[in-house]
Amino acid sequence: MKKIVNDPELVVEEMLQGFVAAHPNDVKQLPNTTVIARKDAPVSNKVGLVSDGGSGHEPAHAGYVGEGMLDAAVAGEVFTSPTPDQVFEAIKAVDSGQGVFLVIKNYTGDVMNFEMAKEMAEAEGIRVQQVVVNDDVAVEDSSFTTGRRGIAGTVFVHKIAGAKAAQGGSLEEVKAVADKVVANVRSIGMALTPCTVPAAGKPSFVLEDKEMELGIGIHGEPGIERKAITTADQLATELTQKVLDDMNLSSGDEVAVMINGLGATPEMELYIVNRKVSEILSDKGFKVYETFVGNYMTSLEMAGCSVTLLKVDQELKDLLEVQSKALAFRR
Amino acid sequence: MKKIVNDPELVVEEMLQGFVAAHPNDVKQLPNTTVIARKDAPVSNKVGLVSDGGSGHEPAHAGYVGEGMLDAAVAGEVFTSPTPDQVFEAIKAVDSGQGVFLVIKNYTGDVMNFEMAKEMAEAEGIRVQQVVVNDDVAVEDSSFTTGRRGIAGTVFVHKIAGAKAAQGGSLEEVKAVADKVVANVRSIGMALTPCTVPAAGKPSFVLEDKEMELGIGIHGEPGIERKAITTADQLATELTQKVLDDMNLSSGDEVAVMINGLGATPEMELYIVNRKVSEILSDKGFKVYETFVGNYMTSLEMAGCSVTLLKVDQELKDLLEVQSKALAFRR
Repeated sequence: MKKIVNDPELVVEEMLQGFVAAHPNDVKQLPNTTVIARKDAPVSNKVGLVSDGGSGHEPAHAGYVGEGMLDAAVAGEVFTSPTPDQVFEAIKAVDSGQGVFLVIKNYTGDVMNFEMAKEMAEAEGIRVQQVVVNDDVAVEDSSFTTGRRGIAGTVFVHKIAGAKAAQGGSLEEVKAVADKVVANVRSIGMALTPCTVPAAGKPSFVLEDKEMELGIGIHGEPGIERKAITTADQLATELTQKVLDDMNLSSGDEVAVMINGLGATPEMELYIVNRKVSEILSDKGFKVYETFVGNYMTSLEMAGCSVTLLKVDQELKDLLEVQSKALAFRR
Repeated sequence: MKKIVNDPELVVEEMLQGFVAAHPNDVKQLPNTTVIARKDAPVSNKVGLVSDGGSGHEPAHAGYVGEGMLDAAVAGEVFTSPTPDQVFEAIKAVDSGQGVFLVIKNYTGDVMNFEMAKEMAEAEGIRVQQVVVNDDVAVEDSSFTTGRRGIAGTVFVHKIAGAKAAQGGSLEEVKAVADKVVANVRSIGMALTPCTVPAAGKPSFVLEDKEMELGIGIHGEPGIERKAITTADQLATELTQKVLDDMNLSSGDEVAVMINGLGATPEMELYIVNRKVSEILSDKGFKVYETFVGNYMTSLEMAGCSVTLLKVDQELKDLLEVQSKALAFRR
């Protein structure tokens, strides 16, 4: 295992310390928790937004904390859901009386722990609503999940629900727009190499020298198919088609595109993928509203990428444009 | 070689096509060149800024094209300097009559080809000035370079010289502040794994399973020392000390810090490195003005990082704050 770490058991805590040391004017770590919150949380008269996830997906989730996106991110251990008490601390820290909205990726542990945290918060009189993101079209059930998994499309939920909250939207309005994003966003990923959880010390799975896996999850959960590596164009075609097959787009519809790197894939390759994805969309008569290329939702040092399409209408486009000061999504 | 590519000989051209397809409102590719320029270039009454480099360092350099940073970036083949005629095209495209400023990393080919392009431009009456960035303290001469190499510190030159030009600074004023950055910025890198140039098809060098190399260049040029992988804290201490040894900082001085990933290193590990770097700087009485953590100047899929320190005064701090709309450095 070649990693730049100290104690593999302490990577999350040390990462969070390094994060706060890097951005002390933007964020704070809640004492004795793994919660990173906006420095100025709770923000008065605003619905608070909380997201979470196991660590190892950086910049998700702390990188999306900031004005216009999340108020707090709860970090679990690597690839492990945060505990309910940690989520509860985050909820309390961002509630200004307008209620708190939770963005949850559809993994069994995350959903269960957020539900428990929600009950704890409601018992203290805090209004809580939530959305469960399940954008991954690859498989219906998987090792971590009942139903479809939540992957890179979650970043669009953070952005758009965060913008709605920043504009003063009510808890119900934030939920409505988050539900709209979830209904209109689809993704699929693929990997060339596995990744290694530091505390495990060895790769989570094995891929042969010339092999890739389509539909893999962001924790290395099994996908649809292992096969010989194809060209970038063939790959982009296959991924885009699988996403489109699950959407109901008509000629003239507009989409936002995210070509997401899983951690170790050079930006060069992501742009080569985008070249073909944008060509396919154009050939089919769909209009690309905006394209995001980079490492948005990673799996440690996994090599691979995912393709996300979000069908946008005027409301979603307007919310995408709203200023964000989140470190990993500035606009 | 596990890469998402089509023809290894076409990776640069296809990447540039994918880049323009992703960001058509921000940038344009000059016809029949590998030059990416601001969509609105040349910008009237502004010094034009051009940088360059072999490809494989993404988001450098096209990611730094945009209001407040570069007017154009010239892409060479992977790890290969762009030719003088390409640089000349970039100079012509961004000159609004106020002259053009070139940011060159100190590699023999880059310096030579930029000098030739400068002569071609001057023969056409375009005023050209330049700075050669040589922030890497690792080695004096190397396989690609006479003198010290230019690495991640170059991004600070883009940012600060770009801000000066955006504020209406003259060619001489842009050069003066770029020279000031170069005089005050130092870096050093390290790698855990090599990278593979697509057209070569095999890694540029070999590192054993538990081995790392200190002082390595962004093209895999030899560094100072190969040794067993240490802890993140030991590594951060060694890198920071080597940089500080080459600077003349006094207690109370302020620095900007960049913890740069070389391509395949998870952000988690970069923040763990930053945790120790920020602690060392604080212990020595230096004040961290701002910290940048991420993939700013990469080496394809090399795993590793670099540490850059820039001593800042009020002028440099003010220029760091100026708005930038470059895709990879938004603020």
